[in-house]
Amino acid sequence: MSNLRLTIESIRPLDEAVMKKTQERLDNLTKPPGSLGVLERIARQLAGITGKVIPEIPKKAVILMAGDHGVVAEGVSAFPQEVTPQMVLNFASGGAAINVLTRHAGAEICLVDVGVAQDLPDLPGLIKRKIAYGTKNMAEGPAMTEEEAVKAVEVGIEVANEQIDRGIGLIGMGEMGIGNTTPSAAILAVLGEIPVEQAVGRGTGLDDAGLRRKIAVIEKAIEVNKPDKTNALDVLAKVGGLEIAGLAGVVLGAAARRVPVLVDGFISGAAALVATSLAPAAKNYLIGSHLSAEPGHKKMLEIMGLDSVLHMDMRLGEGTGAALGMTVVDAALKILKEMATFEDAGVSKG
Amino acid sequence: MSNLRLTIESIRPLDEAVMKKTQERLDNLTKPPGSLGVLERIARQLAGITGKVIPEIPKKAVILMAGDHGVVAEGVSAFPQEVTPQMVLNFASGGAAINVLTRHAGAEICLVDVGVAQDLPDLPGLIKRKIAYGTKNMAEGPAMTEEEAVKAVEVGIEVANEQIDRGIGLIGMGEMGIGNTTPSAAILAVLGEIPVEQAVGRGTGLDDAGLRRKIAVIEKAIEVNKPDKTNALDVLAKVGGLEIAGLAGVVLGAAARRVPVLVDGFISGAAALVATSLAPAAKNYLIGSHLSAEPGHKKMLEIMGLDSVLHMDMRLGEGTGAALGMTVVDAALKILKEMATFEDAGVSKG
Repeated sequence: MSNLRLTIESIRPLDEAVMKKTQERLDNLTKPPGSLGVLERIARQLAGITGKVIPEIPKKAVILMAGDHGVVAEGVSAFPQEVTPQMVLNFASGGAAINVLTRHAGAEICLVDVGVAQDLPDLPGLIKRKIAYGTKNMAEGPAMTEEEAVKAVEVGIEVANEQIDRGIGLIGMGEMGIGNTTPSAAILAVLGEIPVEQAVGRGTGLDDAGLRRKIAVIEKAIEVNKPDKTNALDVLAKVGGLEIAGLAGVVLGAAARRVPVLVDGFISGAAALVATSLAPAAKNYLIGSHLSAEPGHKKMLEIMGLDSVLHMDMRLGEGTGAALGMTVVDAALKILKEMATFEDAGVSKG
Repeated sequence: MSNLRLTIESIRPLDEAVMKKTQERLDNLTKPPGSLGVLERIARQLAGITGKVIPEIPKKAVILMAGDHGVVAEGVSAFPQEVTPQMVLNFASGGAAINVLTRHAGAEICLVDVGVAQDLPDLPGLIKRKIAYGTKNMAEGPAMTEEEAVKAVEVGIEVANEQIDRGIGLIGMGEMGIGNTTPSAAILAVLGEIPVEQAVGRGTGLDDAGLRRKIAVIEKAIEVNKPDKTNALDVLAKVGGLEIAGLAGVVLGAAARRVPVLVDGFISGAAALVATSLAPAAKNYLIGSHLSAEPGHKKMLEIMGLDSVLHMDMRLGEGTGAALGMTVVDAALKILKEMATFEDAGVSKG
């Protein structure tokens, strides 16, 4: 059996008995029941994931997958394709937004080339697992073969396992790939069964003409490829991307190892949508972070039943929302561990 | 001239020239322009407040004002009044949610008794500036005299100045006072000119009958006292609270010293509404943090033009949302300071 199939089959439900004990503790802390909202929900979820009533603060990493997209030939991005490898160099030297925000969150970056369109130099921290030099132009045919898509998903599974083996207990999803809001919108349109124009946004800054072109390109890609909405691997291969596939694998690999995953924005959301279509039980291991300015992101989070906690009007990707979300997860676990109970503090219950 | 009048008159506009330079730097960092949304807006605002193109990470404190409310005699809270002093003891010994979250944010707590209904022991970190043993029952007459209200505001101004004198550069608003969503809703109804039922919520957990009673009590308080909506001091005295007055003073005192203030939830929002009614220029020094589960909070933030960044379904108060917001402010300043520019990183512009 393939690594992908094995991984999907080993994803288990949350530990309800532990979550009940955690809820009892939360209700005994010196605050009105439920008054810390999302912090309490996250604490309870992490208890169910880890099987510990009071989970420890986890070591954290953003897994940042980079890949390129043949569809940029259609003029769907405000930035040229050369920016993908340039930004990988920027990540490796610590100057990008995600570097700042992972440092802020006390997290590391795990940087993976799963499909950048050119060869990259050996860089500190860069993991080279290139499956192809970018996808093909999905407006003309499949972005990838199904074999390539599976290989890219399995890269994600392997990288997640490597990170977990070295002690990482909370993973953030991150990505870089010029043009990647286009396949993400295509995935949302097909798997979310919504019209393309509702799935599409301006990405890094398209004007009105660019937005119309992007919609037309995605409609053409769906028309040409006829992705099967009941088969997420088919959708991923035909209108997806290599870094999106890799991140779907990260979700599956982490869920199989009972490690929580913070979803980032629109592209990470598309990857999570693919992963949870392949394995619905993986939803329980996902935590929502920010609500992207990309209009389709809200729909993605709704489909997966995730909270959007940070409303920051961000649309950068890279894992920036997930990194900020890590500070919220830490806060939730500290509340659970450090607050006094009504009895300890001598406070009257309502 | 009174300290209050002097403070209001010394609040100045933001430094637009510095904000322009900060904006230029933000637009040269390796990301699409504006793609970090709220983080960029906060960075620019802090530049305008501090007069520095790249402000330093500030020392932080939540100023937590405690006071009691005579209106609890009407049965408007799910918790008994004795919980106010009990929670002050809990704050002083470090076991409350705000203690956990200020530690998480690297901030301190400045705890002030401005109107708790009983004498408190000397406690480490407790500042005793009691103006009265709680307010009177506003359903029967004014909650305070105007003199008491001004005195409580001036306590806030003084405490803000003391904190700023010892190096605090970012203040979070926090409060404790059983029953204090009732005066806050009354303030919103009057100053926001909305019907009482739109201003009221369930506080720490009222049932339907309790909610109806709370609405009737506030309507009666407004009927009995006839607060003058064009005079925020009159509104504060007649249907406000001592800790709300103190926090309004904190906003005014901080704004006069060019120090930013993070608004917390519904009660802090009412205090900010009073402060910005007295001194509209103080708005520029306010930063929104979370959106409270109390339904009237959204309206308050809209009136003041503030972002609600954290959608966490929280309704605890104490400054818990402001403390979480501090981590967002730090992130914004780190983005401004630490990110590479397009030129430094050799990345192509769009």
